Amino acid sequence: MKRIRLIVAYDGTDYCGWQIQDNAVTIEGELHHALCELLKEEIQIIGASRTDSGVHAMGNVAVFDTETKIPPEKIAIALNHYLPEDIRVQYSEEVSTDFHPRFCDSKKTYEYTILATAIAVPVWRRYSYHVYYELNLTKMREAAACFMGTHDFSAFCSAGSQVRSKVRTIEDIAVQEEPLFYGNGGKIIKLRVSGNGFLYNMVRIIAGTLIEVGMGKRTVEQVQDALENGKRQLAGPTAPPQGLMLLEIKY
Amino acid sequence: MKRIRLIVAYDGTDYCGWQIQDNAVTIEGELHHALCELLKEEIQIIGASRTDSGVHAMGNVAVFDTETKIPPEKIAIALNHYLPEDIRVQYSEEVSTDFHPRFCDSKKTYEYTILATAIAVPVWRRYSYHVYYELNLTKMREAAACFMGTHDFSAFCSAGSQVRSKVRTIEDIAVQEEPLFYGNGGKIIKLRVSGNGFLYNMVRIIAGTLIEVGMGKRTVEQVQDALENGKRQLAGPTAPPQGLMLLEIKY
Repeated sequence: MKRIRLIVAYDGTDYCGWQIQDNAVTIEGELHHALCELLKEEIQIIGASRTDSGVHAMGNVAVFDTETKIPPEKIAIALNHYLPEDIRVQYSEEVSTDFHPRFCDSKKTYEYTILATAIAVPVWRRYSYHVYYELNLTKMREAAACFMGTHDFSAFCSAGSQVRSKVRTIEDIAVQEEPLFYGNGGKIIKLRVSGNGFLYNMVRIIAGTLIEVGMGKRTVEQVQDALENGKRQLAGPTAPPQGLMLLEIKY
Repeated sequence: MKRIRLIVAYDGTDYCGWQIQDNAVTIEGELHHALCELLKEEIQIIGASRTDSGVHAMGNVAVFDTETKIPPEKIAIALNHYLPEDIRVQYSEEVSTDFHPRFCDSKKTYEYTILATAIAVPVWRRYSYHVYYELNLTKMREAAACFMGTHDFSAFCSAGSQVRSKVRTIEDIAVQEEPLFYGNGGKIIKLRVSGNGFLYNMVRIIAGTLIEVGMGKRTVEQVQDALENGKRQLAGPTAPPQGLMLLEIKY
């Protein structure tokens, strides 16, 4: 028996998130189906990040145990034949049987994309959150800096989370802008954040909060205050899923 | 009666191109329907570029004549209420009644996006052409330079074109690369080309030809030769539509 690690990329638009469900189409469900077809074994998948409905990934990680004779590095390409084109396994390799994608130390990187234009731009609609406002990037960057380091992120976690500790460490956070070639002077704004773990909806709440800072509806002091007080209602709204992408998980 | 100019952005994935047709869903067809709904007049649209099925736009241009009392600059936003979300009018303004989007001098800019990775990346699949090969950018740039200036582009035009002269001027052409955050060292390669006019499929044939140069299947001399001899079979294949985007038309 060997343990195989997969790096999985997907367009989350048409899926009810990662986690396998009886009556909904999910990434894990499709992957499970493809693996059973390919390997002719009943396998069980452990995913690193159970992304929500509509969230995308360049590099989510999953493992499974198998008796297959297919060389580990060939599984990625073989598996893609059984997957729909909005899911593509990027890489496969054998890992130690005690490797666990959630319990082993890792650094995860997420990106949240904001389309800040007067009018929405169709080719960006599946992969960004459109805001009509001109956002103040200087203020957004100032507020983003508050999140750096180790904090109790209770205010930046949706209800329903059952984790014991809400202390997490953010190792990098950056707000970058790219000009849009056309679009009345609009911009693409990307929030990139890396850390050792993220609470339920944490990146989307951070994004929703920073957008309000950029709009002038919320001050940097209020962000600091939410972080210190730990009350969910002191933070901003949860930004919608289509702007979020899990870029990478490093172990 | 006044003439209104629209700047139109769209995701061409689900359309049979720009031009109105009886039994197919097209961008012009949707725009025509929305304009008739909004203005309660029978109007006629003249488009600048009749993009093919699957091709996208950030800034195609269209005009129509109307008796409406709606202020010209408000038409864009009003019209968007009647359009599907994959078509968005970016801008509207009144222009002189003799302005014609195809017969007035213009500079058009197109971008062709190539995803050069070992395995396709789902979030890029609608807006790029995936090639498995590592492309030699130095060679591609060298070949791209052959197209600069005024040439007879007969070899870079699909059959079925009925234009009299196939002489066109390319004012700018550039091959740029962007790293992909994840994906086994893959890249996004963008070919951006501007000129006073383009023949049928011209940008896609230039892209298909340059890709073969990047793959080492075609030399810079062969590109030069195709341009000089004007025979379609001497140029490369027509690259697929989803990589093509009409960025802008300047008058």
